[in-house]
Amino acid sequence: MKTLNIGMIGYGFMGRAHSNAFRKVNNFFPLDYRPVLKAACGRDAAKVQAFADTWGYESIETDWRKLIARADIDLIDIAAPNNVHAEIAIAASRAGKMILCEKPLAMNAADGAKMVKAVEKAGVPNMVWYNYRRIPAVTLAKQLIDEGRLGKIFHYRAKFLQDWTISADVPQGGPGTWRLDVAVAGSGVTGDLLAHCIDTALWLNGGISQVTAMTETFVKQRQHALTGKPQKVGIDDASAFLARFSNGSLATFEATRYARGHKALYTFEINGEHASIFWDLHDLHRLQWFDHRDAGLVRGWRSIHVSDGDQPYMKNWWVPGLQIGYEHSFVHQVADFLKGLQDGKPAAPTFRDGLATDHVTDAVLKSASTGRWVNVKKS
Amino acid sequence: MKTLNIGMIGYGFMGRAHSNAFRKVNNFFPLDYRPVLKAACGRDAAKVQAFADTWGYESIETDWRKLIARADIDLIDIAAPNNVHAEIAIAASRAGKMILCEKPLAMNAADGAKMVKAVEKAGVPNMVWYNYRRIPAVTLAKQLIDEGRLGKIFHYRAKFLQDWTISADVPQGGPGTWRLDVAVAGSGVTGDLLAHCIDTALWLNGGISQVTAMTETFVKQRQHALTGKPQKVGIDDASAFLARFSNGSLATFEATRYARGHKALYTFEINGEHASIFWDLHDLHRLQWFDHRDAGLVRGWRSIHVSDGDQPYMKNWWVPGLQIGYEHSFVHQVADFLKGLQDGKPAAPTFRDGLATDHVTDAVLKSASTGRWVNVKKS
Amino acid sequence: MKTLNIGMIGYGFMGRAHSNAFRKVNNFFPLDYRPVLKAACGRDAAKVQAFADTWGYESIETDWRKLIARADIDLIDIAAPNNVHAEIAIAASRAGKMILCEKPLAMNAADGAKMVKAVEKAGVPNMVWYNYRRIPAVTLAKQLIDEGRLGKIFHYRAKFLQDWTISADVPQGGPGTWRLDVAVAGSGVTGDLLAHCIDTALWLNGGISQVTAMTETFVKQRQHALTGKPQKVGIDDASAFLARFSNGSLATFEATRYARGHKALYTFEINGEHASIFWDLHDLHRLQWFDHRDAGLVRGWRSIHVSDGDQPYMKNWWVPGLQIGYEHSFVHQVADFLKGLQDGKPAAPTFRDGLATDHVTDAVLKSASTGRWVNVKKS
Amino acid sequence: MKTLNIGMIGYGFMGRAHSNAFRKVNNFFPLDYRPVLKAACGRDAAKVQAFADTWGYESIETDWRKLIARADIDLIDIAAPNNVHAEIAIAASRAGKMILCEKPLAMNAADGAKMVKAVEKAGVPNMVWYNYRRIPAVTLAKQLIDEGRLGKIFHYRAKFLQDWTISADVPQGGPGTWRLDVAVAGSGVTGDLLAHCIDTALWLNGGISQVTAMTETFVKQRQHALTGKPQKVGIDDASAFLARFSNGSLATFEATRYARGHKALYTFEINGEHASIFWDLHDLHRLQWFDHRDAGLVRGWRSIHVSDGDQPYMKNWWVPGLQIGYEHSFVHQVADFLKGLQDGKPAAPTFRDGLATDHVTDAVLKSASTGRWVNVKKS
Repeated sequence: MKTLNIGMIGYGFMGRAHSNAFRKVNNFFPLDYRPVLKAACGRDAAKVQAFADTWGYESIETDWRKLIARADIDLIDIAAPNNVHAEIAIAASRAGKMILCEKPLAMNAADGAKMVKAVEKAGVPNMVWYNYRRIPAVTLAKQLIDEGRLGKIFHYRAKFLQDWTISADVPQGGPGTWRLDVAVAGSGVTGDLLAHCIDTALWLNGGISQVTAMTETFVKQRQHALTGKPQKVGIDDASAFLARFSNGSLATFEATRYARGHKALYTFEINGEHASIFWDLHDLHRLQWFDHRDAGLVRGWRSIHVSDGDQPYMKNWWVPGLQIGYEHSFVHQVADFLKGLQDGKPAAPTFRDGLATDHVTDAVLKSASTGRWVNVKKS
Repeated sequence: MKTLNIGMIGYGFMGRAHSNAFRKVNNFFPLDYRPVLKAACGRDAAKVQAFADTWGYESIETDWRKLIARADIDLIDIAAPNNVHAEIAIAASRAGKMILCEKPLAMNAADGAKMVKAVEKAGVPNMVWYNYRRIPAVTLAKQLIDEGRLGKIFHYRAKFLQDWTISADVPQGGPGTWRLDVAVAGSGVTGDLLAHCIDTALWLNGGISQVTAMTETFVKQRQHALTGKPQKVGIDDASAFLARFSNGSLATFEATRYARGHKALYTFEINGEHASIFWDLHDLHRLQWFDHRDAGLVRGWRSIHVSDGDQPYMKNWWVPGLQIGYEHSFVHQVADFLKGLQDGKPAAPTFRDGLATDHVTDAVLKSASTGRWVNVKKS
Repeated sequence: MKTLNIGMIGYGFMGRAHSNAFRKVNNFFPLDYRPVLKAACGRDAAKVQAFADTWGYESIETDWRKLIARADIDLIDIAAPNNVHAEIAIAASRAGKMILCEKPLAMNAADGAKMVKAVEKAGVPNMVWYNYRRIPAVTLAKQLIDEGRLGKIFHYRAKFLQDWTISADVPQGGPGTWRLDVAVAGSGVTGDLLAHCIDTALWLNGGISQVTAMTETFVKQRQHALTGKPQKVGIDDASAFLARFSNGSLATFEATRYARGHKALYTFEINGEHASIFWDLHDLHRLQWFDHRDAGLVRGWRSIHVSDGDQPYMKNWWVPGLQIGYEHSFVHQVADFLKGLQDGKPAAPTFRDGLATDHVTDAVLKSASTGRWVNVKKS
Repeated sequence: MKTLNIGMIGYGFMGRAHSNAFRKVNNFFPLDYRPVLKAACGRDAAKVQAFADTWGYESIETDWRKLIARADIDLIDIAAPNNVHAEIAIAASRAGKMILCEKPLAMNAADGAKMVKAVEKAGVPNMVWYNYRRIPAVTLAKQLIDEGRLGKIFHYRAKFLQDWTISADVPQGGPGTWRLDVAVAGSGVTGDLLAHCIDTALWLNGGISQVTAMTETFVKQRQHALTGKPQKVGIDDASAFLARFSNGSLATFEATRYARGHKALYTFEINGEHASIFWDLHDLHRLQWFDHRDAGLVRGWRSIHVSDGDQPYMKNWWVPGLQIGYEHSFVHQVADFLKGLQDGKPAAPTFRDGLATDHVTDAVLKSASTGRWVNVKKS
């Protein structure tokens, strides 16, 4: 078994999710590669050391440039905020490291395009952590679509609803709330939540040709967690858009952090000529499936409990009826990345795939500010 | 079109439900017969007159014997409490009237047997108001079973849960609470709620051969609504039993008025070799259907919205997607009764069918008092 | 009790729904007025006579002008296709008749404005059949909002999904399919389905200030049912729009007849500062309610089975736990209209309320054709 | 941090689930102890070596007596079939090892009592792997009950439904199907599935005083996987019982492997004076909660998505809205066991707690064979 030495940048929510995936993957998936938690990197030495101890990283770094310079690191995992993705990724690719980058790829498509150029020029394996593609129910949706079971697609509908920033007392900036600081996040729910919806949509339903959008910032000013001072809010709290896909289907997309009752309700629905699909992150182990070809008398939406061995990824886990959770999507992504390495077939979404989403979010933000339909640039 | 003159005894909840059915049936179902609301009967002249005015009854009576004696009455509908079913039905059959009797048929199987004997000797059309057979989703379940789609049946599971008598302040006896007075009701939830579950079960799954049961009276004493005095409670508040059907399947049945959160949750589930069915009165327009012969990848419980024209009774109502409610089951029962008249094929459940349920409830009560398995008498 | 003589124009789906409401209302609601089914009107004498026989109309007419001219008619109910609403309503108001008009009010806002002017000038009671306001769960939503339980509203989300026109073999024009003929219907799903969503939204959440929309016609040509010839389809098969309400909330609206698996799935969701509401026509007797003020440990969406006596309209029906259906919303609307008459307080939605929806649908269609945001005219 | 050397006996489904728990616990829970995967033990050296490689066990043994004799082993985990639990546990306790034993504790209560005696005499920490107590939603149910939120309990209802043995071609005996071989399993669904239901029930609702039961073996003969010969089936395929708890509540319990459509549907419902609870393993991250003290207008079942930081165990995982799965219940059990060690307060369920369940399953089997109510022995 070949080892793959991981250098992890960041130790927050995503640092934990990725580390867990690297640690678990070989217990459940037979692979030629074995990730080794070689080094964790963050600016605060005490915190990064605690993180390394918890997860079993062999060493720490406090400067990502040093991490990249280390000969014993094979792969750089960027689990740091959006505003540092591009610089780190470009440097890492120059150092010949494989790169896994947390989503969204970049602050905007221009930066994203530089990252794509860098990894493609360096020829290093690269992937973006759009983990929802690998929830088994979502992967099953992809399989059903690819088998042509839906026929011509008429409608795509996605939303991502949260409610954690309704209080004006939630600050912006700092460790837990950098997603509210436009300087660090680039945008609000557009890049954070809609990006997930868009990545899945492009994967399942092909390219988006044009969009018209609206955004809103409900709370105009928030204290900055680092400076302690009130500061204008630069992100979008809510974002919605209408879209037309290249295949002729119509779509509605919406994301917000102002929807009471929803913690992380990412849903999508696809209506085709013959069949329809619905999925919901709050019950991620189920896929709702309607097949018009069922006999009329007993036609109805099927609630598929995706836990059988013949359903994606599930033969590697427990037994039918027993569900897995959120974290497993990351394990699957690592498994597929490693499988891609051994087979010489890069696993998606690559940086180039991630750039396609950045092009859509750029168009959404542009439309929201101009009030016009905007054509989406090709990746 | 032939008229059918109705004499209604009782003007409570069931008096209203039946009257509504007689009034509506010809608006929705093409039939040779037309029910005419000829006379309403009750002991309180003022109340029965108000009822007659509301529903359009042409006349009133305050003595059911006079009603039965009237030549202009074709059909006696017994919507009065359980303790008068037998006497009225026997007298009405002797007078050659058709009889519709509210469920349960009688206070016990002995009385029920006399009623069966009376109507069969008189040769008068007769039916018991076990209306749930004619909820379209339930009728569809029957159709699927009769088509053999479930294969061999292994399990039957039914319950009827309410929560309206938890407070010890609810009285017994009197208009709204006679169901708590054993002298009027005969038994508690066994005859009131389990009787519904049993009628459906016998219809869908055939005869029950033996049972073991337990009952409980949680509130031992309640004020009597008519006397105002505290009185020992003679009914069962909760009743559960295990059963074996003649077809070899096993069953659990349960009813209670002490289940917080359930107003009238009647559910049944049937598990067969190939398929399973679940139904729930709180969402009565849906049937849950699982077919193991669906492809494994997309196998799941289907939630069938029973509102299409090819589903039972639904072509007579609105358009697909628009649901009907509780009251419509009574309309269907009248429609089927009238269809039975014109075709010369009596509609079920007849009094003899109703007696079969009384035999089971008798066995349940006997088992609960003896602690033994009890064989169910045949109807 | 005062009689109110009804003259019904049209005998299709809505003619039946309205007739049923007039026939049932006095059985369930104590009122001073009693509707009398005086005359039914349609161009085909045989068909309208059959309809009159089924429902108990005392007479028929084949020319609506004659019906309006009759002195024994108090109220004209327009249950005919959209393209005749304006002419009939204006004539009826001149004749001093009360008018109930099927939705949408008119082919467009210009026609609608003339109708409003006519009824207001004549001073005749008038109402539009936007029946969904009176589904008890929807009325309960209105009550909760009016009590301020949601606080500031951030989001409104509505959709109306059907799947009955996916096949290119469905014709346009004629009795069952006039909704696909632009000359008769005025528009497609925008005026048919979105109009329902918009009426409810304006009622629950106040005025819409601006919209941006897209529409699509998936099947470009259909045979005309009357001529038998292929003809270009002029209606919109699908329509979606983003909106901003006057209260600052954002909205998405969508309707289509190309969503496999949905027969008549009208849903809306409202997210407020403190609470959220969701409702779904396929389970119309339930309201989903989330209250953030519940203790965190047990906070969750509540599925309210709207069937208790203290919930809107329900004390007039059966007992808790027993659901009513689609048709009852029309009964409620008649009850409220009659109550309005006796109290001298006109029940909503009046023609003026109906015009407000026409202004929104006009704006949606204009935006869809121009690709621009469009301001909504005030009613 | 103190290490705790694990000796694992068995490498099947449970061997994996337990190993995963030992490996993950320190990544998510701050504890003084750290489990070390010291040795895996099984009769087939090649298979146990492969298992050890996958999970990182440092060594293997093929004789459990040798494993127990090793000085470097602190804790014996019995993940082997039921028929060896007693002998191994008694030997391990004599060797002074801590013991974690897979459920059910023993083949019957007599054996279980010997195990309890052994561990209590040796004074070794001991626990049974009834993992469902530590699904966060189930733990939350326990907390709500202990806080008195339900008031007096009237009803308890549990079932565990599967469908994997319907085909007569499923063999008995051997690695994947030993649960069908009475010599190895002791009983069928009674000890396998009902045992889970009973353990939870005793924990949530106190002791069961008496039961009446029925069992059935639908497929009477199956090939033995090891001998290849047809052999009489000695286990129960289905088992149901009625029960009375010491607190006066009534209960129904049922388990089967013949319920089409259910892979592992373990559900329980508890109805109290003030509130009710429902839980379902197929959506294990949700708790259904009905509180009658909610205002009547908006009273309904709440679907609680148990993923917030203030809900049991959840602050150690991801962020609100993101669900965990089946395997996490084992991680929680290890965390609580280790916490118990450091605090000197043994975590439940101990062997003595496990014996209580064996007493109930013994009573169930006895009642099923005698047709009588049977009193449950105290643990």
